[in-house]
Amino acid sequence: MKKAEIISVGTELLMGQVANTDAQYISALLPGAGFACYYHTVVGDNRERLSSCLRNSLERSDLVILTGGLGPTEDDLTKKTVADVLGLKLVEDEKTVSSLVDYFSKRGSAFIASNLSQAYFPENSYILENDFGTAPGCLIRHETEKGQKIVVLLPGPPSELNPMFSNKVLPVLKGETDDCLKSKFFAIAGVPESLVEDRLKDIISGRTNPTAATYVKEGIVTVRVSASGTSEEADRLIEETSKIVRERFSKELVSEDKEPVEEVLVRLCEKENITFSCAESCTGGMIAALVTSVPGASNVIKGGIVTYSNEAKINLLGVPKDVIDTFGAVSMETAKAMAENARIKCGTDIAVSATGNAGPGTMENKAAGLVYIGVSYKGKTFAKEFNFKGSRDHVRRRAANMALNMARRMILGTLEE
Amino acid sequence: MKKAEIISVGTELLMGQVANTDAQYISALLPGAGFACYYHTVVGDNRERLSSCLRNSLERSDLVILTGGLGPTEDDLTKKTVADVLGLKLVEDEKTVSSLVDYFSKRGSAFIASNLSQAYFPENSYILENDFGTAPGCLIRHETEKGQKIVVLLPGPPSELNPMFSNKVLPVLKGETDDCLKSKFFAIAGVPESLVEDRLKDIISGRTNPTAATYVKEGIVTVRVSASGTSEEADRLIEETSKIVRERFSKELVSEDKEPVEEVLVRLCEKENITFSCAESCTGGMIAALVTSVPGASNVIKGGIVTYSNEAKINLLGVPKDVIDTFGAVSMETAKAMAENARIKCGTDIAVSATGNAGPGTMENKAAGLVYIGVSYKGKTFAKEFNFKGSRDHVRRRAANMALNMARRMILGTLEE
Repeated sequence: MKKAEIISVGTELLMGQVANTDAQYISALLPGAGFACYYHTVVGDNRERLSSCLRNSLERSDLVILTGGLGPTEDDLTKKTVADVLGLKLVEDEKTVSSLVDYFSKRGSAFIASNLSQAYFPENSYILENDFGTAPGCLIRHETEKGQKIVVLLPGPPSELNPMFSNKVLPVLKGETDDCLKSKFFAIAGVPESLVEDRLKDIISGRTNPTAATYVKEGIVTVRVSASGTSEEADRLIEETSKIVRERFSKELVSEDKEPVEEVLVRLCEKENITFSCAESCTGGMIAALVTSVPGASNVIKGGIVTYSNEAKINLLGVPKDVIDTFGAVSMETAKAMAENARIKCGTDIAVSATGNAGPGTMENKAAGLVYIGVSYKGKTFAKEFNFKGSRDHVRRRAANMALNMARRMILGTLEE
Repeated sequence: MKKAEIISVGTELLMGQVANTDAQYISALLPGAGFACYYHTVVGDNRERLSSCLRNSLERSDLVILTGGLGPTEDDLTKKTVADVLGLKLVEDEKTVSSLVDYFSKRGSAFIASNLSQAYFPENSYILENDFGTAPGCLIRHETEKGQKIVVLLPGPPSELNPMFSNKVLPVLKGETDDCLKSKFFAIAGVPESLVEDRLKDIISGRTNPTAATYVKEGIVTVRVSASGTSEEADRLIEETSKIVRERFSKELVSEDKEPVEEVLVRLCEKENITFSCAESCTGGMIAALVTSVPGASNVIKGGIVTYSNEAKINLLGVPKDVIDTFGAVSMETAKAMAENARIKCGTDIAVSATGNAGPGTMENKAAGLVYIGVSYKGKTFAKEFNFKGSRDHVRRRAANMALNMARRMILGTLEE
């Protein structure tokens, strides 16, 4: 595969005001276009330091992608610096000038002269129009003693960079090489990472193409299957191994290709014409917020009730006071009553509930991380006990993910009491 | 100020699986200890490439911080590579050996020999114990022709790196130099960024110490005031300018030092003994989830009702059917009824509501981004109309932040109808 690297320009990155999500976004897509990313560099808005980084990168990589520093202010010096290093002039692009004039007149804002700097590009650039902002990017093919190098300049804001890279740069890069590295992702819930690894030992160890690896986040274990070759070869190799993963985790596989569990659940409910509701204590609205983050969720979720206090559990949800008095707010019985009453109150086919202590610290003798999750569907209601580790936020996220996955498995008939 | 840079080691960063939040975390804290960060570099788990990056960094910086690659697997080659480049031997640390043995025996797991690699450090290292994992870090003072360099090795997982850097490395760094750059952050809501800049023109333009700058995220404008000098000088300069910011934004200032609006609201409610509830349509549980993310929120939030469907608005909340029929679910009148009924149903002092179209796309003739936020407190209920721009997620976040801030201002008596 060809070698690529990313240089991100911006003092705000070096001040820690933002994380370098631009480099992350680009890196995840480069292997599929046949480029392996070897370095990320972040450098401030400074000509000498940027020049020196760029020279270094051109020595060692076939493709150098620069992000940030394309705007109209004095700080924005990426184009000037790249032109200098490559020995190119900056020339005005008429089409960009007229679209800039257009942009400002449509908004009724004054056109400040400094905006014109956004219409200058190193000569012979292929200009990448910006559909979500004013500063276009550009792509330059540059001949050197070590062969042709490609230099790409992209705007820093992710809302502008992401579509520009995916829609306009990736297709060009894919034409550069036949080889690529593709990956497929399998999300598995309810199995510890070590057990996933063990069950896939034969495809994880000692193989070079395809490869498989696992990582874990918020209780979901992801198996990444990667293969290199031509696009067709890579697809074929990935599919062979994917079959094995699907077979061995038929019950626990939540989704492929990073689809989050809330999206899988909403699509499943839509398909089966099932309505959803929830009752939340420790998750405090996260389950509902996750489900409603999916466009089209209004066909599925009718309502949700956040009952952070005992009064709310009794008054809003109708949990019997003596259930709480006898077993406590954090208990199997309360979780069951919450799920069942949410289903009835909201008039839905399925309901889930979560009650627990998200921490920090012990609460009414319940350890931090102790959570009961209830589910009620087709006349059957039960709850399960979990002990999640980690911070308050982590416990809440894990509990919310688990509740959504339990709802999914309940509908599929694979959840055991 | 002294020069610093960060080298992050890990193929998962170059594959785009995670963003480099380690570099962000460290970078935000370095100036306060007297170090200016000039570069971030990400490099894979590869000895040659890491060696070459480290040599380059030692040429140009006083402090080089490496993150990642300290674990027990074969991939973890940071310590070996650093020792090689600095010409140091790796030596076993007995204290670390015994705490590793302890760690595994307490958990009843087998002690695998490869774990011992975590007890080897470049000779004469100052060892940084890991309170949240098994791999300790270390700090090395290294004499070169260009003076003494400090090299720090930290584990990659943020839950281990963050406390190790803050508690164990920062105090050492602060002893290295008298100079520092400190910053203070002011969060301002309800004023566009351009107006904030205009009102602070005299302290933003043409000053070098202290400096002030603005940036905006999810509708909250942050003013950063930075000053350099000795710790006391910087504090004094920041305080002078801070007074001006506080005076000019006495109504709109939400918080100082990055405290999120939900935390400000919970603390205010606690202080004033006020209980809170909410009714959410387009935000779908986010308002409740934000409030309950604050430890101690259970003293304040009684409940929340997520009414994503019209039936839920009518049945769960008691919004009159003819209000929805006459004005629509996305309307000032529905927002008001939702807030008032949430307050009554949940029996709280204050309630907020949000109903709107988060997008994507127009819904029942309501444009994406149109949101009505209601508030009900002390016999007064009203709603305001907003047109938020951006993605579905962005609209929801802005609406949730706005609702929390409206509750805060309502309690303070600074919210106008």
